[in-house]
Amino acid sequence: MSKRSEVVILDCWASPFCMRVKLVLREKGVEYESREEDLFGGKSQLLLSSNPIHKKVPVLLHNKKPILESTNIVAYIDTVWPSPPLLPSSPYEAAQARFWADFIDKKVFEAGTNIWRSTGEAQEVAKKDFIEVLKQLEGSALGDKKFFAGEAFGFVDLLTIPLTNWFLAYEKIGDFKIEDYCPKLSDWIKRCNQRESVAKVLPDPEKVYEFVASIRKSQGIE
Amino acid sequence: MSKRSEVVILDCWASPFCMRVKLVLREKGVEYESREEDLFGGKSQLLLSSNPIHKKVPVLLHNKKPILESTNIVAYIDTVWPSPPLLPSSPYEAAQARFWADFIDKKVFEAGTNIWRSTGEAQEVAKKDFIEVLKQLEGSALGDKKFFAGEAFGFVDLLTIPLTNWFLAYEKIGDFKIEDYCPKLSDWIKRCNQRESVAKVLPDPEKVYEFVASIRKSQGIE
Repeated sequence: MSKRSEVVILDCWASPFCMRVKLVLREKGVEYESREEDLFGGKSQLLLSSNPIHKKVPVLLHNKKPILESTNIVAYIDTVWPSPPLLPSSPYEAAQARFWADFIDKKVFEAGTNIWRSTGEAQEVAKKDFIEVLKQLEGSALGDKKFFAGEAFGFVDLLTIPLTNWFLAYEKIGDFKIEDYCPKLSDWIKRCNQRESVAKVLPDPEKVYEFVASIRKSQGIE
Repeated sequence: MSKRSEVVILDCWASPFCMRVKLVLREKGVEYESREEDLFGGKSQLLLSSNPIHKKVPVLLHNKKPILESTNIVAYIDTVWPSPPLLPSSPYEAAQARFWADFIDKKVFEAGTNIWRSTGEAQEVAKKDFIEVLKQLEGSALGDKKFFAGEAFGFVDLLTIPLTNWFLAYEKIGDFKIEDYCPKLSDWIKRCNQRESVAKVLPDPEKVYEFVASIRKSQGIE
């Protein structure tokens, strides 16, 4: 692994956005130090001073300089450590990848959150919306391809797979199976999960489910 | 002006997101054809087939290939026509610029829309939120600099100045003056508006105000 510079992540184990940063660093073979933040107990001074606008993880500190927002961090790392490349070199294909990254950032996690934060009729609506988002992703972006950009694991795969780490929680809380609606996307998830970097970075989805269930309980959503 | 390729914008004169695309093309000296869409009367088949996910303008058709989402389009154009450069060449500075672009995309237009779509107490809250967003932008991103990245008009300036074309409408409808709260940002707006490309692309703010006022009237917001 490369040791060119100091790379620190202000991290939270359950955050799919933090998983993105750890995943891209593993893909690039870059050593990093993870500092777990206590998001409920109290954020560190370093987090508050590094990200005064959003006060959120992940923060990447590269030689002490903060880089913010996970998609932006992944693109930054792809520029600083270009091998293997994640964003396509063709400007048109890079723009396509960034379009889908933006779609995913705006839609997938929020649609999933609406499932576990709700109950009854509202949860049924949330499930329907969530499936709709996944179907758009499956139908218009993935299709019959192995990965989003074709044969190689790339930018959109890397940004999306951590979000799927929460899917088991949505399924157990919402009592449904994503595979029944999106078989191609489900196959893609299985393919990505076999990848060494993904297997090493993503936590056990059961542990994420327990984490989400405990938040639901503490907030009286049941 | 360069004539290397066919560049078409599916456009709407009042959309600040469409203004961004016209502005970047003028900055780069690229000839383009604007096709005005009738967003209220019925969108063209070309718009619906080019952007089936969001069905929104702007769409850039570059040699008939669609590129979507204004920030993405601006970055694409900056790659295909690199001179003069908009995004900094330093990966760290480029990541800073993209962070602020994302902040602006998520906050500024929506906060402004909340002003003109509301009345009474809700409008007072919306005005307070809007000023708060502008103060963050002024305090943390612009500071005492001439432009967001320093001495040269760049990525963040280009993305932000079209949004300010609607500020007069917010001020007249909300009965307040942005200059009273954000003098440095207001000076930056004046500086940018003196630029030839900006003066040529941005419509008269009074015309935008009349457009917004007519929507308010047609929707019974008064």
